[in-house]
Amino acid sequence: MVKLGKIKYKPVPVRDLLIEIKDLSELMIDLAYSAALFDSKALAEEVLELEERVDTLAYLLDMNVMIAVRDAEDAEHLVGVSAVASAADKISDAAADIAILVIKDIGIHPIVRQVFEKVAEHLIRVEINPESILAGHSLDELELAARIGVDIIAIRRNKEWIINPKEVEKLERNDVLIARGAPHGIDELEGLARGTISELEE
Amino acid sequence: MVKLGKIKYKPVPVRDLLIEIKDLSELMIDLAYSAALFDSKALAEEVLELEERVDTLAYLLDMNVMIAVRDAEDAEHLVGVSAVASAADKISDAAADIAILVIKDIGIHPIVRQVFEKVAEHLIRVEINPESILAGHSLDELELAARIGVDIIAIRRNKEWIINPKEVEKLERNDVLIARGAPHGIDELEGLARGTISELEE
Repeated sequence: MVKLGKIKYKPVPVRDLLIEIKDLSELMIDLAYSAALFDSKALAEEVLELEERVDTLAYLLDMNVMIAVRDAEDAEHLVGVSAVASAADKISDAAADIAILVIKDIGIHPIVRQVFEKVAEHLIRVEINPESILAGHSLDELELAARIGVDIIAIRRNKEWIINPKEVEKLERNDVLIARGAPHGIDELEGLARGTISELEE
Repeated sequence: MVKLGKIKYKPVPVRDLLIEIKDLSELMIDLAYSAALFDSKALAEEVLELEERVDTLAYLLDMNVMIAVRDAEDAEHLVGVSAVASAADKISDAAADIAILVIKDIGIHPIVRQVFEKVAEHLIRVEINPESILAGHSLDELELAARIGVDIIAIRRNKEWIINPKEVEKLERNDVLIARGAPHGIDELEGLARGTISELEE
């Protein structure tokens, strides 16, 4: 998948690489399930792009680990880092497998649908109504994770997807949000986005 | 890992197999991170046992799918089921990789610790104080998921682990809980278990 010729060694802190690989791989599982659940080929394509990014990061991590290791003791300590990166890489491959089903229009069997419907308990896709109090506020102002236990994992604005949006990202009218959280928080977010709830819990 | 000679075909609904494989594989990731975070070899061993179970279920699913398929149309529909099962199987393998690090005492490198500390934002291990209002109540009475957005993913009672406890399971004094959820709910559960909070939110 990844274009190997293009990966050049760069010195990057191994810790930063490992955290990004791990976070991306888990995000990808949610995005892949969302792509299947909401039958979104565009979101599935985003998952495949992230998989390419994880592959690139994993190669960079391996190169940085190799350069960091000077002796047997270094190697014994850092082998765990490589192993965690490779486990995260497997998870990202699994997410890509699900995304490919969506792109190839496979997986419409009722059994698969039922499995993804169970996922619906913690994933939601909702559009921001122009009247919603969410519009015009940044994620760090809204503090949705702390207040209602919900994470915004992706935003579709016009035709673009913003994956894993930053805290400074401001929500806009008609943004489509994909979020995960506990059922209570999911319901709350739905109400806030649709405009049927007009106040955030403290 | 799995003892192939022991797997015999049994007719089991493919839907049930797929749901169990998917649920177990995701649970295993949380359990493997918990094992690493709390440095618990016993919990890591549980992850490896679950991996063996997922392997067995995946073989059973493949056999049941093969028997169900009569023609090209069946095959086209059911190939998605196999693909989702195999993606879940990859996730369970990745969880087992992390568990093996714990069992082999690898992964104490500060970088790995930092990565797992980020996981600590949504995972907790806490013991039930004898004064706690949780003691003596079943999970369905407590409704922790609905009330505070927290799932109990494992309970250690004496020397036994109860993985993915059922709703009828009654919590006991001195049980050690491993739970996942949003930070607010995690704090709430910690207070409830320690006895510093003595009332459940409605």
